[in-house]
Amino acid sequence: MQEKTKNNNNLKPWQNKMHEVIYEAHTPAGKLFDIVLLIMIIFSVAAVMLESVPSIFKKYGEELIFVEWFITILFTVEYIARLICIQKPLKYVFSFYGIIDLLSLLPSYFGLFFTETHSLTIIRTLRLLRVFRILKLMRFVKETNLLIKSLSASLPKITVFTFFVLCLTFILGTVMYIVEGPESGFKSIPVSIYWAIVTLTTVGYGDIAPITPLGQFIASIIMLTGYAIIAVPTGIVSVEIAKQEISKKIFTRTCPSCTKEGHDSDAIYCKDCGSSLD
Amino acid sequence: MQEKTKNNNNLKPWQNKMHEVIYEAHTPAGKLFDIVLLIMIIFSVAAVMLESVPSIFKKYGEELIFVEWFITILFTVEYIARLICIQKPLKYVFSFYGIIDLLSLLPSYFGLFFTETHSLTIIRTLRLLRVFRILKLMRFVKETNLLIKSLSASLPKITVFTFFVLCLTFILGTVMYIVEGPESGFKSIPVSIYWAIVTLTTVGYGDIAPITPLGQFIASIIMLTGYAIIAVPTGIVSVEIAKQEISKKIFTRTCPSCTKEGHDSDAIYCKDCGSSLD
Amino acid sequence: MQEKTKNNNNLKPWQNKMHEVIYEAHTPAGKLFDIVLLIMIIFSVAAVMLESVPSIFKKYGEELIFVEWFITILFTVEYIARLICIQKPLKYVFSFYGIIDLLSLLPSYFGLFFTETHSLTIIRTLRLLRVFRILKLMRFVKETNLLIKSLSASLPKITVFTFFVLCLTFILGTVMYIVEGPESGFKSIPVSIYWAIVTLTTVGYGDIAPITPLGQFIASIIMLTGYAIIAVPTGIVSVEIAKQEISKKIFTRTCPSCTKEGHDSDAIYCKDCGSSLD
Amino acid sequence: MQEKTKNNNNLKPWQNKMHEVIYEAHTPAGKLFDIVLLIMIIFSVAAVMLESVPSIFKKYGEELIFVEWFITILFTVEYIARLICIQKPLKYVFSFYGIIDLLSLLPSYFGLFFTETHSLTIIRTLRLLRVFRILKLMRFVKETNLLIKSLSASLPKITVFTFFVLCLTFILGTVMYIVEGPESGFKSIPVSIYWAIVTLTTVGYGDIAPITPLGQFIASIIMLTGYAIIAVPTGIVSVEIAKQEISKKIFTRTCPSCTKEGHDSDAIYCKDCGSSLD
Repeated sequence: MQEKTKNNNNLKPWQNKMHEVIYEAHTPAGKLFDIVLLIMIIFSVAAVMLESVPSIFKKYGEELIFVEWFITILFTVEYIARLICIQKPLKYVFSFYGIIDLLSLLPSYFGLFFTETHSLTIIRTLRLLRVFRILKLMRFVKETNLLIKSLSASLPKITVFTFFVLCLTFILGTVMYIVEGPESGFKSIPVSIYWAIVTLTTVGYGDIAPITPLGQFIASIIMLTGYAIIAVPTGIVSVEIAKQEISKKIFTRTCPSCTKEGHDSDAIYCKDCGSSLD
Repeated sequence: MQEKTKNNNNLKPWQNKMHEVIYEAHTPAGKLFDIVLLIMIIFSVAAVMLESVPSIFKKYGEELIFVEWFITILFTVEYIARLICIQKPLKYVFSFYGIIDLLSLLPSYFGLFFTETHSLTIIRTLRLLRVFRILKLMRFVKETNLLIKSLSASLPKITVFTFFVLCLTFILGTVMYIVEGPESGFKSIPVSIYWAIVTLTTVGYGDIAPITPLGQFIASIIMLTGYAIIAVPTGIVSVEIAKQEISKKIFTRTCPSCTKEGHDSDAIYCKDCGSSLD
Repeated sequence: MQEKTKNNNNLKPWQNKMHEVIYEAHTPAGKLFDIVLLIMIIFSVAAVMLESVPSIFKKYGEELIFVEWFITILFTVEYIARLICIQKPLKYVFSFYGIIDLLSLLPSYFGLFFTETHSLTIIRTLRLLRVFRILKLMRFVKETNLLIKSLSASLPKITVFTFFVLCLTFILGTVMYIVEGPESGFKSIPVSIYWAIVTLTTVGYGDIAPITPLGQFIASIIMLTGYAIIAVPTGIVSVEIAKQEISKKIFTRTCPSCTKEGHDSDAIYCKDCGSSLD
Repeated sequence: MQEKTKNNNNLKPWQNKMHEVIYEAHTPAGKLFDIVLLIMIIFSVAAVMLESVPSIFKKYGEELIFVEWFITILFTVEYIARLICIQKPLKYVFSFYGIIDLLSLLPSYFGLFFTETHSLTIIRTLRLLRVFRILKLMRFVKETNLLIKSLSASLPKITVFTFFVLCLTFILGTVMYIVEGPESGFKSIPVSIYWAIVTLTTVGYGDIAPITPLGQFIASIIMLTGYAIIAVPTGIVSVEIAKQEISKKIFTRTCPSCTKEGHDSDAIYCKDCGSSLD
């Protein structure tokens, strides 16, 4: 996640210094930068949230708008700083974090252009999209490698599973639409499919619920199915995590004498031939 | 899933050509055929869904009926084509996909016969059964082997588990019917059993909920039981998937003498013929 | 589950014959007996269920009472038959199945004594307890060994876990009672604890739901906790099932030449020394 | 959990005797002390619960207050006894159990000072905090080591996962606030986030539910996501428990030269000092 650009001699010394502060976390200045950024992100998301509460907006509206612009300007400075201290600015611009950083700025500035002449909904929506600033937090997550690896390894299987579940909900939703009919809240097939998903995933809002005996019977079968097949993604992910953990353990040490693999990372002597591992 | 019929010399050249396009996906024409079919299925299911939404049916009713007949005719052509380009058409007719393909056509044609003279409910139900066309999608799923193997290996255990859960809900439903009575919504034992399933599977609609202290106490026990025993199918499937994954990995060594596969990775001699594996 | 009493010479021939039919399933007569018994149980439970539906009871009340007495008499004959064809009848009487079989009879006979002079609730309750007849079905479950072994091995850990969860719901329920108060439905601490269980187990009826911001915040934490700790029983059971499966595989064959254990059940030669396993 | 203080000769004989009874469970007196304590805790928590039920408080209010003071005095005696029979009383005062024991007393005594002159809410809240006495039960849990070890080993990964889930609910909550708006119950972003957590964790109260087609579509995606990602904590915990179980089993071989434990079952030489393990 942190590009290594230390031996880039094309950059001027102040750029290198700046790069160290912004992109690397092991210097005191770099750590301070990260902490300030972290606090800004949390403040910013909290401001978006509080703005939406009518009673709070009435009381502290002006303060929130001030905080909002203060943070927007800080993020703008951060974005420019990130651009000017690396060799390939375009690579950053189109990277995941570059896009997130830009998306964190745009809504506030767009808000200036779309004023009274435009629909209020668009402005409101744009302003609310600032919540995506929360994705800037992803930079601080370090322990995720194993989780992300396991999840992406499980992805193809989970996609197939989700596809099966979707097919099932399409069929079950249609059947329930036939059985229950519009009177019980199953107004159309899309709504019935929505209900089938609510039921199969064991969420169960209760805004729509079967009332005929046959409908309740079919609903029971859907619930038991949902209860049983929740095992499938769990099984997939468990096995993937287990595989990641095992490979982490096994692919660590090889004995230089007998070339036997699979020694614990803390082993000093080979457990098979007894010679030193170092 | 794709029958090998390349060296069938009983078929005429145009039949062989047609077979290649319809049943095999590795030629450009075959790929195009698959993509067109895929799009048709999605369109068809979408049409069934949209027809059921009253506001959409009012506006676009005629267009939807046109789309419907267009797709039905295409599927009819596909069905006939599949029949005439294979050696054993009857085998296809009674295969899983043959039945699905036929079921995708019949509802539309039946709709022509059951007109005003017949009950509208039957026609409506028949027409809605076209949603089973979604099963035609199954042809395109390839990565399912592991999932299907694990699930079918888990099936006997999960059936026993579901049987236990059902017995439990019968007893708990009856007990709750005694405790709560018809006033709280527990109108009859079948309804109470439905409620017990809703609760045990952690769906929890809330259309029926206990109101007496004793009822709430028993409900709490049911919920905690449901929360604990969800572990059982998950454990079963996890272990099955793990076994499939392990066997996939281990079952690679083959005996050079008897060509039997499936030897453990640490085996020195073939466990079937006793000759050295190296 | 099936006592071996073949070489009991204390029993008369007709008793041995009867024992074979009732307690052993491998003869045609034994199989027929099992199937008849299975059907009777299902009919009996169905009758209890249907009796509780007012509309059905009105129409078919007399038929249901007839079915009920027919089955009760059959079960009485079965109970007596089981008693007279074994050497130690008392052992059967106090066994799990003996108690279940007796409990299946008593409610019907008690119903005769507690007539108009007694409270209707007691009679109704007694009659409904016939639903426990469903436990007679347990006799037919054979594949449960692994499941039951895994569950009983997991029991101490799951009990500790449930104890933790209960402590948590007591504390969370009290906190929510303080935060939300009786106006939002949190009428008393027991009700709040009921709500905490409903929430933690992800059932979520919605009959009681927090309405204050602080209450919703605490509820969110409870939900996320419940969502995370559902992993614990699942993990426990998965590992137990895995252990059972592994031990099933490992404890099968030992090489007579090199005494190495762990050969597959289908192995013919030792995979370590190559000598025959038989 | 039980400090070993047998060979503390600084304590007088009666202190040693007292210490044995209070801190050690293997003598008859110690066992009796534990059982009495256990019953007192359960009574005490039951009293707090029953006090909150208006109908019970009206009838048995005085008895409950008597039970309350009786138990408070007993716990006070226990606290003083625990203090005077150990060498380092301060270490106990600031230990987990010391704090819990003190917290179990304070609310009752504070109740005496905050009388009519103070707000009733504070008194009520203080009195209710006595529910934390339930944590005194933790002393009696012994089999938890494995569970606690697995959970604390899983904690960093589960924290990262919960952080991801929270970010997701922030974004999804905001999107749903934009899509559904205040009319459907999505009054503000915090409320929408609360709804997103309710949905993602599959609790599903139904107090807030989407009513627009787009909202129901997004809600369906959230549910399927929640249904799929519940696999992640389960997978993490399963693998941790499996690791604990495996290490428990394997970590039995001890090197005879360096007495280091934890060698693999197939190791021939000690991995730490290189000498033969046999």
